[in-house]
This record gives sequence, C-alpha cells and structure tokens, in this order.
Amino acid sequence: MTTGRTIHVHRHQWHLVWDHSISPIARIQSGETVSFDTLDASCGQIGPESTAESIAALDFTRLDQVSGPVYVEGAEPGDTLEVEFLDIQPAQWGWTAIIPGFGLLADEFPDPALKIWHLEGGADGWAEFAPGIRIPLSPFCGEIGLAPAAVGPHSTIPPYRHGGNMDTKHLTKGARLYLPVEVPGALFSLGDGHAAQGDGEVCGTAIETPMNVTVRLTTHKDMQVKEPQFITSGPLTERTNTAPYYVTDGIAPDLLEATRKAIRHMVEHLQKTYGLSRSDAYMLCSVAVDLKICEVVDMPNFLVGAFFPLSIFTA
Amino acid sequence: MTTGRTIHVHRHQWHLVWDHSISPIARIQSGETVSFDTLDASCGQIGPESTAESIAALDFTRLDQVSGPVYVEGAEPGDTLEVEFLDIQPAQWGWTAIIPGFGLLADEFPDPALKIWHLEGGADGWAEFAPGIRIPLSPFCGEIGLAPAAVGPHSTIPPYRHGGNMDTKHLTKGARLYLPVEVPGALFSLGDGHAAQGDGEVCGTAIETPMNVTVRLTTHKDMQVKEPQFITSGPLTERTNTAPYYVTDGIAPDLLEATRKAIRHMVEHLQKTYGLSRSDAYMLCSVAVDLKICEVVDMPNFLVGAFFPLSIFTA
Repeated sequence: MTTGRTIHVHRHQWHLVWDHSISPIARIQSGETVSFDTLDASCGQIGPESTAESIAALDFTRLDQVSGPVYVEGAEPGDTLEVEFLDIQPAQWGWTAIIPGFGLLADEFPDPALKIWHLEGGADGWAEFAPGIRIPLSPFCGEIGLAPAAVGPHSTIPPYRHGGNMDTKHLTKGARLYLPVEVPGALFSLGDGHAAQGDGEVCGTAIETPMNVTVRLTTHKDMQVKEPQFITSGPLTERTNTAPYYVTDGIAPDLLEATRKAIRHMVEHLQKTYGLSRSDAYMLCSVAVDLKICEVVDMPNFLVGAFFPLSIFTA
Repeated sequence: MTTGRTIHVHRHQWHLVWDHSISPIARIQSGETVSFDTLDASCGQIGPESTAESIAALDFTRLDQVSGPVYVEGAEPGDTLEVEFLDIQPAQWGWTAIIPGFGLLADEFPDPALKIWHLEGGADGWAEFAPGIRIPLSPFCGEIGLAPAAVGPHSTIPPYRHGGNMDTKHLTKGARLYLPVEVPGALFSLGDGHAAQGDGEVCGTAIETPMNVTVRLTTHKDMQVKEPQFITSGPLTERTNTAPYYVTDGIAPDLLEATRKAIRHMVEHLQKTYGLSRSDAYMLCSVAVDLKICEVVDMPNFLVGAFFPLSIFTA
C-alpha cells in the first residue's frame, strides 16, 4: 500500500546506539516514503574549516549517529523490510580523515590527518583530490539499519545482521536493500553520508558528508533474509569503471593480512608513482580503491587485490 | 629488445611443482613472445565425456601442472618480469567440479560433482549453464608464475609472491602482469586455463579448459615489486557488468567467515529463486559470482558481499 505521503526527519532527530527501547520519531505505513536530512558522521563536529587538530579533538562517543528511528506499522519479527533509495543528495563539502586507532592499517598510521573536499555538481558531480585527480561522486549511506531484538544498546560502529554500518558503496540511488525485521515496527534509521568510497573504506572514512536521503520502506511478509541482501540499480561503479585499473596483490594464509598487504603495496605504489604523501595515498585508497577477493580456495594462500581506477586522472 | 621471434611450448612440456632446479625447456631474450598450448588443470584426466565418478577417481598429484619453464636471458633476482597477455583462446569444452576436501565450503559439500560445458564462439563466446542462463567467456590463466629462490619443490596449488595459482579473473587479453624475479632467468611457466570465473573461485574450480596462450615476456631492471601487480586491459568485467547485480552479505568478525556466510546465503538464494540444485548453485557461484570486501574497518564486524550478475539471464 502506498499513500504518497512523505515523512520528514530533521537533522536533530538522531540517536547514538541501536536499541529497540528508543522511541520512534515517526510512524508510517508500509510503502510510504521518508525523507532524511542528516548530519555527517561526526555529528557536526567536523566542518569545512576543520583541521587535523579537529580530528585529534573528536568526541568519539558522538560518531556515527543515525537518524530515526521510524516505526513501520505492521512490520513484525521475521518479516523483511525493503529499503528503496529514491534520492540521495550530498552537501557541497565533505571530509576524509585518518583517525588514530581506527582503520585497516591503524598500527602503521598513528597520526591524525584530515582532508576537506569541495563537492561540485551534486550527486552526479566530482570531488577534486589534487590537480588532475578527480573522484566522481556516487553517494550512498554508510549506516542503514533496524533495531535489534537483543535487549540494550548496540554500538553504531559495526554492521550487524539487521544492518548498521554497512559502508557498502553499491547502495546508491535506485538500489533496493532487504533487511531482517527483529522487532515490531522494524525501527528503521540511517546516516553516515558518503559522497564516494572504495570497496573496503580502508582508512576508516569515505568522503563523509551531510546528506539528504529519501527512501521508500516496504514490509514483505513472504520473504526472509538472514543477513542484508540487495539488488543494485544497474551495472556496478559505472562512473569509475571506464578505463584500466592498476592492481596490487596481497597474498597470505589469512584474508585480513592479505588485504593489509594489498593496501600497503598500493600506498607505496601511489607514493612512488604520483608523488603523494603517505597519508594522502592512504586516504585516496579509502575513497577510490576497490578490494576484491580474487581467490579464497588455493590453500594455504589467499589472494586479495586492491584495484585503483585510472579513470580518476583527468590530466 | 624485441626480435619478433615466437617460441612454442607444447602441451606435453609441463611440470608439477615450482622448483628452480627444473631445467628450462626454452631460452628467450627479453621482449620475445612465447606461445603455450596447455592442457586443462586436470592434466588431461578430465575430458568432455567425464562424469562425477571421474572426479572421485582423480589423481591429485597431477593437478595444476604448469607449462614451461622458460628462461629469460639476462633476468636476475631483484628484476621484475612483465607478462603481457597477447592472445588467450579456450578450447570448445570445459569443466567445473566440486572436488571433495577442496573449496570455500568444503565441509558443507562432501560429495563430488562435475559439470561439462560446451564453449561456443571462442574467446568472445558463451557457455550455457542451463536454458536461459549463459556465462560470457572471459578467458585467462589461473597459474602464472616464476621459480622461487627457496630450494626445493613448492606445490602449484597456492599462489606465492612470485605468482603461481593466482586465479585472478582480471588477467585477460591485454593485461600486463608484473612478477618479482627470484632466480637467474626468471623461469616462467603458466597453465590452468579458465574460460570464466567469479572473483573468489569459491567451489575451487572455474570453467576449466585447455588453452592456447601467447605472452610477451619483458625484463624490467628499474622496477621492483614485492608481490604481483598488474594493469588491466580496460574497464573490469565488461561482459557481465551490463545489468543489476543481486547481492548477499556475510557479516562476521573474521573475513573468511564473512565470505563463507555470503556464499552460503547466495547458494540458498539461487536454489530458492531459480530452482537450482545445491551443487549447481555452488558451481554457478564459482564461475559467475564476484566477492567484494565492502568494509574492513568497522570493528568488530567486516562485511563481504557476493555479487551475482543478473546479466547472465538471457530469457
């Protein structure tokens, strides 16, 4: 049932944990749309004028807030909630940071760093990394989730079977995501706007940005998923997959170590080939490099590839 | 230096381990081309008339033979060998198998299975999985490597820093691969023809096929890589990335467990949605589903996605 009604969620209507005891800020019927005006993942602590010192001073307890929750009438545990992304619009600025203690190579990057981006052209626009290097925007929400059945607060930092910090770059406009409902009303929230990201989000941050997002929420009684599933809006990464990729492999008996090696090699490659600083190279990996598991069966060694799209060079 | 000379390697000129004591079957100058006529990865044990019983009877000591080695004059430890793929042609048939004890979900698939494929149209052709499901071919070599400096035999089953069983589907015609040279002459070999494969090769086999492969081998004295690196011939997976993907997520504190969950969910999805048998669904994942590490930073849970290309449906 679709009524055509749209509910608006304002930027101050956020919460800091997944917890089914948090009161819903709105109630909708299945098939109605909700429009969210969200702060960035720092909950407004970082702005266009911030510096690396702002990262050092971050209040971690306020990171990755999510907007909501929205109660969907009739949704029951065992149902599936479909989230259709109708529109996603980033702000005109964004940030990427190395946050000490966080990220794939946290032990090798102990110092804070911050890059402020100017975002041009809206959802179909660009972010200039440096002269001649331009990241095409492909906005999505890092955080998309439902309240868990388990009692008590759950951190918003990890993803769970009921969603959360999925950080999945393919959930762009037109995608349809299926989440398992665990509590009456589903209790849907989203946040953590990303203007662009590589598969992996290796330094721990994407191009973080405030965002306006409109979704349609629909309950399915005849569908069950154990963890999130989704259908993309079309072919993958159409804006970057237009030219060759340079790839560095990591090979190891442990997938995480193979991943770390692949990114370490890519950081070195970007430094050596393009004269980037080490922290800039790491942040560029986070917003543009895609991690693929090339093989996961040739025991005892697995192979993970870090794929750098050469299409981002405009010079 | 390129002389225009092409060396031919015949299908009986193979070896079963990486070992720098194996005598080269040919010696070339840097920049010359080598044309390989290779058997499939079963070393000829599987043929177009084979059945699942043939899998149960496989002699494992003969799997993943590689053709060569070729000695490149002047290549020294510390150099980098570039492998440019000039031409890759599959045979007119191929096979995919579930081999007991092998594969990402080996513990859940204890029984042997075998699928024989008819490959139509050469390198740009197709393999029909079932009526209405057609896999576009995108041939490459699973095995590409150099002899290691370490003394003694090394199994051809895993990949190493000097290459080996890389099983990397993006090393198609036009790609250029860089491998670290560990011994004088580099001692290059290849094999394990794959007509198509998903990122991951989850059941342990791709569309395995005999193959004719021509490569140009060039030594670089001024380049160093610690593990394999490569540049693709163009955009990725152009033949399958033409429509939406259906994606199943696996979320876990361990990347391998997240990967196993993602594939388990995809096997269930393919069974339920398309009526495939469980073993057929697993083999279809191995030849068509791509594994991506969507996030590897949101501790304690990582998210791996199994991406199924809906473009393979022709009906």
